[in-house]
Amino acid sequence: MKHIESVNNPKVKQWRKLLTKKERDKTESFIIEGFHLVEEALKQGEQLLEIIVSDQVGLPPRWDVSSTPVTLVTEEISKLLTETEAPQGIYAICRVPSKMGEALAQEGKTFLLIDAVQDPGNLGTMIRTADAAGIDAVIVGHGSVDIYNSKVLRSAQGSHFHLPIIRGDLHEWIERLQGKNIPVYGTALEGASEYTDISSGESFALIVGNEGNGVAKDLLSSTNSNLYIPIYGKSESLNVAVATGILLYFLKK
Amino acid sequence: MKHIESVNNPKVKQWRKLLTKKERDKTESFIIEGFHLVEEALKQGEQLLEIIVSDQVGLPPRWDVSSTPVTLVTEEISKLLTETEAPQGIYAICRVPSKMGEALAQEGKTFLLIDAVQDPGNLGTMIRTADAAGIDAVIVGHGSVDIYNSKVLRSAQGSHFHLPIIRGDLHEWIERLQGKNIPVYGTALEGASEYTDISSGESFALIVGNEGNGVAKDLLSSTNSNLYIPIYGKSESLNVAVATGILLYFLKK
Repeated sequence: MKHIESVNNPKVKQWRKLLTKKERDKTESFIIEGFHLVEEALKQGEQLLEIIVSDQVGLPPRWDVSSTPVTLVTEEISKLLTETEAPQGIYAICRVPSKMGEALAQEGKTFLLIDAVQDPGNLGTMIRTADAAGIDAVIVGHGSVDIYNSKVLRSAQGSHFHLPIIRGDLHEWIERLQGKNIPVYGTALEGASEYTDISSGESFALIVGNEGNGVAKDLLSSTNSNLYIPIYGKSESLNVAVATGILLYFLKK
Repeated sequence: MKHIESVNNPKVKQWRKLLTKKERDKTESFIIEGFHLVEEALKQGEQLLEIIVSDQVGLPPRWDVSSTPVTLVTEEISKLLTETEAPQGIYAICRVPSKMGEALAQEGKTFLLIDAVQDPGNLGTMIRTADAAGIDAVIVGHGSVDIYNSKVLRSAQGSHFHLPIIRGDLHEWIERLQGKNIPVYGTALEGASEYTDISSGESFALIVGNEGNGVAKDLLSSTNSNLYIPIYGKSESLNVAVATGILLYFLKK
């Protein structure tokens, strides 16, 4: 097992660069941290490139890492890689699934389309929720926070390794889905139907949007219909991840 | 209008102390920040004690502050009061509703009971969701983050001023609610019914619990029945605020 002790080692510099979107895009790879996420990557296998672990921390004996490169690093190096306040000392470098995910997504029947959601905790929670609801693929449009942002990854709790999460143009996806007779539902406060009035079938796509402005108007005008969740009390709206959960579980049943 | 320019002014010290739970409990008051929250407090009226605004920031002309003390402060003082990275320069001191809220809650028909939820963003989002779903009162049990923590207040987006949010002993509340023939539903992964199998009436109480451990076993054993939300995909669970939204909107309809 390799052991890196110098913070100036070029590998360390390369790993750290993955904390930026620019480098993630360039190398089509990303960094994850924490036992749970690394274990999810290990279980899935295909995307995992290497594991990095602090020499003060052990790998759980149940993990089979026989086909994964593992590098030991000092605590000092470990702390350079974290974006959390209480790092667990374990990291992995993973590959962006790219084309395979796209191909898989094409075969799906149920989709979540995300328009310009900017809070990483919200985006991660929405991905986790789509996974729980058994959705086949999540399409993240322009103007959203990066899919591989560390907080998105943490909030999604491993769902990145469970279903295709794809960047895409939502206009193109709406057209493509409608071409396959998959009904596309937007979410809107005006000119929309109460969500419980929809009788959904086994295929559907739901579009949810930006925390402040909702789904863009030009997207809403190309959906099959638009839905709203009634507000019975005095709050102005629901959190976007909560709204996503209510709608996906309603459409799914 | 009073204008405070010294960071050593005793008022400033007193306001700052409200960033701690200890002082909030002692004085039965709390501090809020940002235009939206202060406006919600102003609309509700009863709990608002005073408004504090940076002399670099104006009050919106539509606000009627004729019956509320307003104090101008310097930007330097304003920054001492904030817990955000981009403060808006406006704050208010509010009173904890205490007994009145408790009395109102007693008359309710629909309740959310929260057991040991520790993330302030989750607790705030759950309060906001309960408000949206038209729930009559939220009871927060021991072991949860403080109701008046600044991040709970921000995530709840003003719902603290819309419905009673009460600290209480959940065992006592379950007994009290069942005494009024209000069915109490726990949430659990084992020994529970799928939530869609329940036919709910116009009164109900839902208990949701800690992010990692769920609702305490001794609470689950005193409910009328316990519910679970099926996981159709590969994620292990739903975020607690998302689960709360799915269940409350299902029970409410």
